[in-house]
Amino acid sequence: MRNLDEDTITQAVLARLADTPDPRVKEIVRGLVRHLHEFAREVRLTEAEWLQGIRFLTATGHKCDDRRQEFILLSDVLGLSMLTVCMNNRKPSGCTEATVFGPFHVEGAPHYDDGADVANGAKGEPCEVSCTVRGLAGEPVAGATIDVWQADADGRYDVQYAGLDQPQGRGVLRSDESGRFRFRTVVAQAYPIPDDGPVGDLLRATGRHPWRPAHLHFMIQARGYETLVTHVFRKGDRYLDSDAVFGVRESLVGDWVRQGDGTWRLDFDFVLNRAQAA
Amino acid sequence: MRNLDEDTITQAVLARLADTPDPRVKEIVRGLVRHLHEFAREVRLTEAEWLQGIRFLTATGHKCDDRRQEFILLSDVLGLSMLTVCMNNRKPSGCTEATVFGPFHVEGAPHYDDGADVANGAKGEPCEVSCTVRGLAGEPVAGATIDVWQADADGRYDVQYAGLDQPQGRGVLRSDESGRFRFRTVVAQAYPIPDDGPVGDLLRATGRHPWRPAHLHFMIQARGYETLVTHVFRKGDRYLDSDAVFGVRESLVGDWVRQGDGTWRLDFDFVLNRAQAA
Repeated sequence: MRNLDEDTITQAVLARLADTPDPRVKEIVRGLVRHLHEFAREVRLTEAEWLQGIRFLTATGHKCDDRRQEFILLSDVLGLSMLTVCMNNRKPSGCTEATVFGPFHVEGAPHYDDGADVANGAKGEPCEVSCTVRGLAGEPVAGATIDVWQADADGRYDVQYAGLDQPQGRGVLRSDESGRFRFRTVVAQAYPIPDDGPVGDLLRATGRHPWRPAHLHFMIQARGYETLVTHVFRKGDRYLDSDAVFGVRESLVGDWVRQGDGTWRLDFDFVLNRAQAA
Repeated sequence: MRNLDEDTITQAVLARLADTPDPRVKEIVRGLVRHLHEFAREVRLTEAEWLQGIRFLTATGHKCDDRRQEFILLSDVLGLSMLTVCMNNRKPSGCTEATVFGPFHVEGAPHYDDGADVANGAKGEPCEVSCTVRGLAGEPVAGATIDVWQADADGRYDVQYAGLDQPQGRGVLRSDESGRFRFRTVVAQAYPIPDDGPVGDLLRATGRHPWRPAHLHFMIQARGYETLVTHVFRKGDRYLDSDAVFGVRESLVGDWVRQGDGTWRLDFDFVLNRAQAA
C-alpha cells in the first residue's frame, strides 16, 4: 500500500472494494476500476490529458439541467446507450426491435383521443400516422399506452424552445379493441443533436457530424407485455447509415407516403414481446 | 450500420472515429470506446444501472464549483489519479517520489520570506519545517519556487471554509543559495476527503472510509529540473496503509518531532530530477 506502482495500484484499489456490501455494486465498481485503469495504461495517459478529461466531464455536468442531459448525449455518441439497449432487449424474431430512449422524452405529456393532432402547433407538413399493436401470435393488444414524441420541421423538440408554455409534438395515446391507434402530427425531419456543448466539441474533434435521421419516438406499455422503447425512422433519409447515436435498425424504417391532397401518411405495425414471468 | 448488435456496435463506433484529425485524440477516444464497451458487456449493464450511472455523473458535475472538484475526487478514490502520477513520474532512484496533486491547490497563494508563518491564523499546534532542495548529485538547488499547502487541525483547507477572506495554511517560498527553505505552520492532521457529495455516496456504497493520513503538500519548481508535486506524510498516522486516494509512498513519510518547548519540528530533504532535454 505504501509503494504502489502503475501495475500494482489496480489490485490495491480492487482490494479496497472487498467490503462492498451489495454484490452487484461490487461487481460493477470493480469492473469499472479495472477497465478505467487498463484504458489509462494502454493509451499512456499524460497528466495534462487527465486534467483535460476532468475538465471535459465537469463541463458536461455543468451543461446538464432540467431541459438538457449532456451525459446521455455523451453516452449516445459513444455508442454506450445503444449497446445497453442491445444487451437488454433481446427479443424473439418477429418482435419490433428497441432503440435508444434519447434525452427528449418528457413525463406527463398530454393524453389525446384517437386521431387527435399531437403536433399542437409544432411547425411542419401535416401527416397522419396509423399503427397497430399486436403480440407475437398476431393477437391485438388493446388498451396499450403509447407515448409518442418527435422534433418539428426545424429539427427541434418542444423542450429545446425557451419560453414555450405548452407541449408540442408529444402526447400519450391508447390502442383500441383491435390494437389500433392513430394520430395526426407533422412530418419528422433529420436534425443535429445539440452540439453547442462538450459533446459537440467531441464530435468536432473526432471529425463526426451530429445528425440523426428523421424519426418518431414511441414508448409502448401494455399489461402482460415487455415495454417497447423504439423509433420509426424515415425511409430515404440521408443519415440512415450514419446516425450520430447508432440507433437505426432496418426493421424500424417506415415509409412516409405523400397523399393526393399533399399531406403525408405513415402506417406502422408494432409487435410486442410477452413479459417474462417475474 | 442498420442492424448493429451488442458485439458489432463497438467496431461501428470505432469506424466512425476514422476521420479524427489529431492522431492522439483518435487513439484516446478509440481506447475509451473499447474499454467502456467492454466494461458494459462484461458486467451486463442493465438499463436501470446505466441510468443510475448517468445520474451519478450528472450529480458529480453539479457538485463541482470554484471551490470543489468532485471529478478529481472521483478520480482520486478510483486510483486513476495515482495511476496517472505513477505513469508520468518515473524518476531515477534517489529522487523524491511524486504523489497526487489533489483538489486543494490554489493558484496565486501569498509569497512568504524564509522562516515566515504560512499558517496565517490556521488552527493547530505550532510547527517548524526545515527542508533542503538538491539535485541527484547532491548539488543544492537555489532559487527553487516551493508551493506548500495543508489542512488545519480540524482537517480542513482554507478553501473549505465559507467566508474566509485570506489564505491560511498555504504559501509560496524560495530556496536560498544552499538549497534550504524553512517555514512555520501548524501540525498537519489526518482528514476525511469531502464526503457530502456523490463520491461520499460511492465510498459508503463500497464500504470504504474517506480518510487521508496527515500530510503537507509541496510543489517544487526550479529551472533545469522536473517539477515535483508531492506530499510529506506524517509518521505513525493510522491511515498510512489505507489512504483513501492511494497516494502514500514509504519514502515520503516524515517524522514530526516534538521539541522541548512543546512545539513540533519536521526536517525533510527533497531531491529533484534533472529536466529532460526538450
